[in-house]
Amino acid sequence: MTRIAFVGLGTMGLPMATNLVRAGHEVSGFNRSPGRTATFAGSGGTAAGSVAEAVRGAEVVFTMLPDSPDVEAVVLGDDGVLATAATGTLLVDMSTIAPATARTVAEHAANAGLRALDAPVSGGEQGAVDGKLSIMVGGAEADFEAALPLLRALGTTIVHVGRAGAGQTVKAANQLLTAGHLGLLAEAVVFLAAHGVDLASAMEVIGGGLAGSTILDRKSPAMLGRDFTPSFRIDLHHKDLGILLESARSAGVVIPLGATMAQLMAAAKAQGHGGLDHSAVLLVIEQLAGRS
Amino acid sequence: MTRIAFVGLGTMGLPMATNLVRAGHEVSGFNRSPGRTATFAGSGGTAAGSVAEAVRGAEVVFTMLPDSPDVEAVVLGDDGVLATAATGTLLVDMSTIAPATARTVAEHAANAGLRALDAPVSGGEQGAVDGKLSIMVGGAEADFEAALPLLRALGTTIVHVGRAGAGQTVKAANQLLTAGHLGLLAEAVVFLAAHGVDLASAMEVIGGGLAGSTILDRKSPAMLGRDFTPSFRIDLHHKDLGILLESARSAGVVIPLGATMAQLMAAAKAQGHGGLDHSAVLLVIEQLAGRS
Amino acid sequence: MTRIAFVGLGTMGLPMATNLVRAGHEVSGFNRSPGRTATFAGSGGTAAGSVAEAVRGAEVVFTMLPDSPDVEAVVLGDDGVLATAATGTLLVDMSTIAPATARTVAEHAANAGLRALDAPVSGGEQGAVDGKLSIMVGGAEADFEAALPLLRALGTTIVHVGRAGAGQTVKAANQLLTAGHLGLLAEAVVFLAAHGVDLASAMEVIGGGLAGSTILDRKSPAMLGRDFTPSFRIDLHHKDLGILLESARSAGVVIPLGATMAQLMAAAKAQGHGGLDHSAVLLVIEQLAGRS
Amino acid sequence: MTRIAFVGLGTMGLPMATNLVRAGHEVSGFNRSPGRTATFAGSGGTAAGSVAEAVRGAEVVFTMLPDSPDVEAVVLGDDGVLATAATGTLLVDMSTIAPATARTVAEHAANAGLRALDAPVSGGEQGAVDGKLSIMVGGAEADFEAALPLLRALGTTIVHVGRAGAGQTVKAANQLLTAGHLGLLAEAVVFLAAHGVDLASAMEVIGGGLAGSTILDRKSPAMLGRDFTPSFRIDLHHKDLGILLESARSAGVVIPLGATMAQLMAAAKAQGHGGLDHSAVLLVIEQLAGRS
Repeated sequence: MTRIAFVGLGTMGLPMATNLVRAGHEVSGFNRSPGRTATFAGSGGTAAGSVAEAVRGAEVVFTMLPDSPDVEAVVLGDDGVLATAATGTLLVDMSTIAPATARTVAEHAANAGLRALDAPVSGGEQGAVDGKLSIMVGGAEADFEAALPLLRALGTTIVHVGRAGAGQTVKAANQLLTAGHLGLLAEAVVFLAAHGVDLASAMEVIGGGLAGSTILDRKSPAMLGRDFTPSFRIDLHHKDLGILLESARSAGVVIPLGATMAQLMAAAKAQGHGGLDHSAVLLVIEQLAGRS
Repeated sequence: MTRIAFVGLGTMGLPMATNLVRAGHEVSGFNRSPGRTATFAGSGGTAAGSVAEAVRGAEVVFTMLPDSPDVEAVVLGDDGVLATAATGTLLVDMSTIAPATARTVAEHAANAGLRALDAPVSGGEQGAVDGKLSIMVGGAEADFEAALPLLRALGTTIVHVGRAGAGQTVKAANQLLTAGHLGLLAEAVVFLAAHGVDLASAMEVIGGGLAGSTILDRKSPAMLGRDFTPSFRIDLHHKDLGILLESARSAGVVIPLGATMAQLMAAAKAQGHGGLDHSAVLLVIEQLAGRS
Repeated sequence: MTRIAFVGLGTMGLPMATNLVRAGHEVSGFNRSPGRTATFAGSGGTAAGSVAEAVRGAEVVFTMLPDSPDVEAVVLGDDGVLATAATGTLLVDMSTIAPATARTVAEHAANAGLRALDAPVSGGEQGAVDGKLSIMVGGAEADFEAALPLLRALGTTIVHVGRAGAGQTVKAANQLLTAGHLGLLAEAVVFLAAHGVDLASAMEVIGGGLAGSTILDRKSPAMLGRDFTPSFRIDLHHKDLGILLESARSAGVVIPLGATMAQLMAAAKAQGHGGLDHSAVLLVIEQLAGRS
Repeated sequence: MTRIAFVGLGTMGLPMATNLVRAGHEVSGFNRSPGRTATFAGSGGTAAGSVAEAVRGAEVVFTMLPDSPDVEAVVLGDDGVLATAATGTLLVDMSTIAPATARTVAEHAANAGLRALDAPVSGGEQGAVDGKLSIMVGGAEADFEAALPLLRALGTTIVHVGRAGAGQTVKAANQLLTAGHLGLLAEAVVFLAAHGVDLASAMEVIGGGLAGSTILDRKSPAMLGRDFTPSFRIDLHHKDLGILLESARSAGVVIPLGATMAQLMAAAKAQGHGGLDHSAVLLVIEQLAGRS
């Protein structure tokens, strides 16, 4: 049993924190909107009234927040994690943020006598609920080993990929692939529909061969059924592609498909689809072809 | 037992024809370069000296040829399939060609009293050897039913997707996805390498989440190991993307990722990599980033 | 005074033929839709009832037709130019067609004892009316010299760029630049509008520096005033970019901007704007940004 | 006669400051590398040993610096312009920086009792030497009027385009067009070369029609002669496209051509061509086609 603080109880954070409770840990949770904290308390967690209250006494602090500024505020801010946590506490940030920010957080944590991992996830809301996330971890090997028993309550594929920031770098590559697979699938669907091909049959045979992908398995039903109830929102994938483009640019890496895909995702957001599931990039491809 | 003619005993055709032999059929094979025909005879097939010789007496004629002009020559040409085959013969063209050509072939076959299916495949050389191809079939339902027992010797996912030409349309979409998945994977690999991330660990965790794909499973080892021994050549994928672009253009479908990917594949060919495996598109992405 | 046949009296052809009349030549004109022929007769030309009638007795035959199949029909067809014209006649095809077709036409002309030039133009309807076209000529030097006095009635920049087909190759490059300049201008206009910048002032200062272009001078008023009365239609520019893509592909040239622009032009056509001026590519960029 | 401080005497700044001297003004110049300051003194300017020394007593302060951080340091830093200049001094920043930074500078200037304009330029080194720059000015109308007599010594097209930051927004659009025109020209040149067309003739006829541009006039000789002596460096244009992409992204504007071009410019930089003239983007297009 570990005493855990969990900050950020959103779509992903709430089921993740709940899985830690189920694994037998004592978890104090905090969320900016108090309704989520109350829900967490109803699932066996402890409701905290502030970041500081959640963090006090915790051996491990998890954060699962929307973007880099949120992590900076919660971790580095007044009454934040570094100002409150005991020396030696392990900080596991599972948010998806810029690799550069992750490195900054790790440096500040080290200066404050804490240990830090960046541990973003892939697998979506369903993966969070089922405890079947993929977790890509950057930081010191010893800290990874220390966190591993806890992370096993959250995911099935848990890999240490390098030093501080490396987890976020891998997550950026992951988001390149998921976005690109969605965009290509949308192009394929519109192409097939324009030629009058039966879409369900086509998806079945395509998915069974070299063109198969997890995105095709999980998202082609949404596209064919035109159900864009958000599992992962356009707004968030757009944010993630911004991180990707900046990281590629600063490293001198040229990503023609990534850049094209980022424009399509930006179009989806600009056209007001930011709150829909990222599979709604289909709407942009349909519109380009005058088929919306 | 069915009497079969099989024209085109290349990298794909030879193991496919051999699987039909193994399934208990009498298969007469022909290939332009006689060495392949001899190899086929060594595997239990019958060596034919010409298309006409192979086709004479066959109940079903399979063709597995490189490109549209080859199919037109073999099927429509003097001493070709239509000129030789008995009325009612079933022609199953498994080549990857333009949907428009497939429709033309089907019309000519009907006029000659034959039945025709377009039945391109996905799964590569390994899938052909293992009899685990995905087969996407266009044509009449009754003809599909007639061919199905034979196709089961060749593949595991066999789907009737629509009328004549529909198989080729689905194959074009399939090639869009496989090319795009390769291009995105190449961008991800160069991005991760530039950031000093351990590539094998990164592939493991990415493959386990929403970004997973058959291409990642099968081709990331080739990219990481820099082994571009051809399973499917750049030259052929370039040809297939030409079919895709033309079909999209004529249908008024806009495919920004497909168009970008076609440029990258064209670059791979222009730079002299046409004979390498299509995973060698990695070389173009590395070169763009000055990392070759 | 030269006896001239002029086939194709459309938006471009009619003012061009009329300028040849004004220059003192005897011009027999033919157009498929007879109303245009009648208009030409009203401007001092002679109305012909067929290609053959126009061509009979002509020393020089001009053609100005929409696309490659039209040129093939008019030049190579039964009762076409080659079947009718006297030995030694000079054929000047000013249509924009595929370089490969231009070379084929030149070969057939040579076999028939005629001389041929491909001489596509740039400058639009206004340039045709004013006799200020740019003319890019492929073919034999002597034939170019022979045509030059006549071409001077049509254009101001008249350049011999190489052998048969070279005129069309240069025209394809020209259409790449004009399309790209339009697309970039559209992106700039939407970008500036989104930031609330005064567009007329911005166009003035941008046009005065290194970013200046003929497209900006002539087409930014159309974009700012949202007047897409066709001078050169989306449909035609889309056709021309098809020629470009095919020529680049067959020559192993990679054109990332050209390929991206071709998708935007295809979108404009797919969305039903084919009959508008090519500056209407602005509508696609606005729509992508959700600003239409 | 106006007492002027000029900070930043680089490739552009030195001839600009010198033109202000020639126009009869008293100009105190400062540059971080003292050799440039000495050269300026030799042309009739006054050499200052620091920003503060240059600014003291000046009625108008010009800055011409590489990037946003430089402007922030010189203007906002300790002993910087705002800390030193007298109340009411007019600051004219002619650097190319992010519009957001320009707005921040203007706000800080206003708080310090100064007036500020953002006034980036187009026209390159030659335009700076000849006093024929295009100048796009953001800020208050009265301040623009006050600066106009001085700006006339530097440029010929001087336009007030809007409020603080608007000058930089227009400059970003300008850099989109110049980069795109260069990229398209490079694609056209490689396309024409691959087809064996005479390049000089082709440039002449293309430049005379609708495809004409200032970039074609000024940069096609560099491309054809393969002389990439820098007038405006790849590194700087890459920086400017970063500003463009960020400004487009934050405004929800989708720029497919701009995004593609930014990748090509990034490739040029990544391949080690950052110090060459921006026309060297030709090298990337040649390499993609395997023609380098």
